[in-house]
Amino acid sequence: MSTRAGYEKKALPNIALIGAGNVATHLGRALKQAGYKIIQLFSRTISSASELAEKLQCPYVTDLNLVTSNADIYLVSVKDDALDKVIPQLVKQNPNALFLHTSGSTSMNVWEGYVKRYGVLYPLQTFSKRFAVDFKTVTFYVEAVYPTDLDIVRQMAYSLSENVYETDSEQRLYVHLAAVFACNFSNHMYAIAYKLLQEKGLSFVPLLPLVDETVRKIHQLNPVGAQTGPARRWDRMIMNKHESLLKTCPGIADIYKKVSESIHSYAIKEYLIQE
Amino acid sequence: MSTRAGYEKKALPNIALIGAGNVATHLGRALKQAGYKIIQLFSRTISSASELAEKLQCPYVTDLNLVTSNADIYLVSVKDDALDKVIPQLVKQNPNALFLHTSGSTSMNVWEGYVKRYGVLYPLQTFSKRFAVDFKTVTFYVEAVYPTDLDIVRQMAYSLSENVYETDSEQRLYVHLAAVFACNFSNHMYAIAYKLLQEKGLSFVPLLPLVDETVRKIHQLNPVGAQTGPARRWDRMIMNKHESLLKTCPGIADIYKKVSESIHSYAIKEYLIQE
Repeated sequence: MSTRAGYEKKALPNIALIGAGNVATHLGRALKQAGYKIIQLFSRTISSASELAEKLQCPYVTDLNLVTSNADIYLVSVKDDALDKVIPQLVKQNPNALFLHTSGSTSMNVWEGYVKRYGVLYPLQTFSKRFAVDFKTVTFYVEAVYPTDLDIVRQMAYSLSENVYETDSEQRLYVHLAAVFACNFSNHMYAIAYKLLQEKGLSFVPLLPLVDETVRKIHQLNPVGAQTGPARRWDRMIMNKHESLLKTCPGIADIYKKVSESIHSYAIKEYLIQE
Repeated sequence: MSTRAGYEKKALPNIALIGAGNVATHLGRALKQAGYKIIQLFSRTISSASELAEKLQCPYVTDLNLVTSNADIYLVSVKDDALDKVIPQLVKQNPNALFLHTSGSTSMNVWEGYVKRYGVLYPLQTFSKRFAVDFKTVTFYVEAVYPTDLDIVRQMAYSLSENVYETDSEQRLYVHLAAVFACNFSNHMYAIAYKLLQEKGLSFVPLLPLVDETVRKIHQLNPVGAQTGPARRWDRMIMNKHESLLKTCPGIADIYKKVSESIHSYAIKEYLIQE
């Protein structure tokens, strides 16, 4: 599903960037560095708009009616639940342009009925505003109605990264759901560990080599097969000890129980339970 | 809590290794490489015993009554629930030796009443039998009754790694619990992602850069602050979509709900919910 084409040298399309959140910030800066011209930035919040506009060295507006009609691409990176409000007003400015959103969980068809040329440029990454991202390794999922527009979106993605995949909207939704588990939820497991140690005056830092090793393994083994630990072998003695330590934090105890059961059910289904 | 002393050069103690599981295998090989002599291996299972004994080039026994009485250190790396059965018989061979176990969740006092010199050498790592481990970065937690024995255990740990910490048994139990979250449970989040994608014919590999980045972040930010995603900002629209995709897997849907709630409760407590 990954393809890369040799694109002819021609002027890159102009971009109007809609949104000034984490994704807009990182994507805007990276596209500018890749040679795209961000001709205008829109954000409802004046402080966010001016801050990012300064970084991108472009003008900004805070009123959707003032968005430029001269962009080739309108790249919309706002919260999913803001898309519905932004789209009807935005498309009026330049109905023949290419409209893209950057959301993992929103169908491409959110544009349907408003414009003809639309698509998706979804960077699969965890962005924190103050934490630099190396886009070279970021995976992009792209989609567009017309092949010529898909070429444009693909070119944008390849100008930033080597990992570009084409998916339809339903597949992308599953990718996004999987990413919530692989990124957001795994991070929360670290956060729980951090807090448990913090309460006992212990540091999380000595656990980092273990975290690194866990990830190193899944670069070589599939994560179902790489599973280790008391829940996999259903070591009730250890699990009872852990559960008694968690008596004072019912929410975490509940997660401990559910995740342990799920680990064990995977192990029963697919592998000999033998470490 | 970390210390390192300059040890005088003298003959390293001889070790009898009790157990032939993942930890025993990796630890035995590493200690041998570090110059320790493994003078005998015990495992109840003849196939495991002979396989590991060949790697360690040492004799093996499968009957606890035949364990050597000549070792300086008896290093016991068996399942936690087997410790109680092994200890009473094992200690008879050489009651004045130093007895160590390698368990994160078992108190040092499991030896109390049986022998005088005892302690713990706990490597905090995820071991799979067929997956090589670089011990240099493995964190060790050590404990012993007598300072002279603590020196011996510390020396063993430092011969393998630079990350050596002293903890008491209660702290170690919390470290082990935290490690279950940081390693076993984070890995299960990858496993769930893997299976969700697999069911849609999609590959997990494009998610690896995201997983790497998530871990890179917590080397610099604490994981509570590094949290991103729909649960942190309580984006019900996305979460509803995800929950409807998970309707056919109630166990996973339940984990989705509980972990999301937990992420959000951390975010409410400690941070402005603003991404």
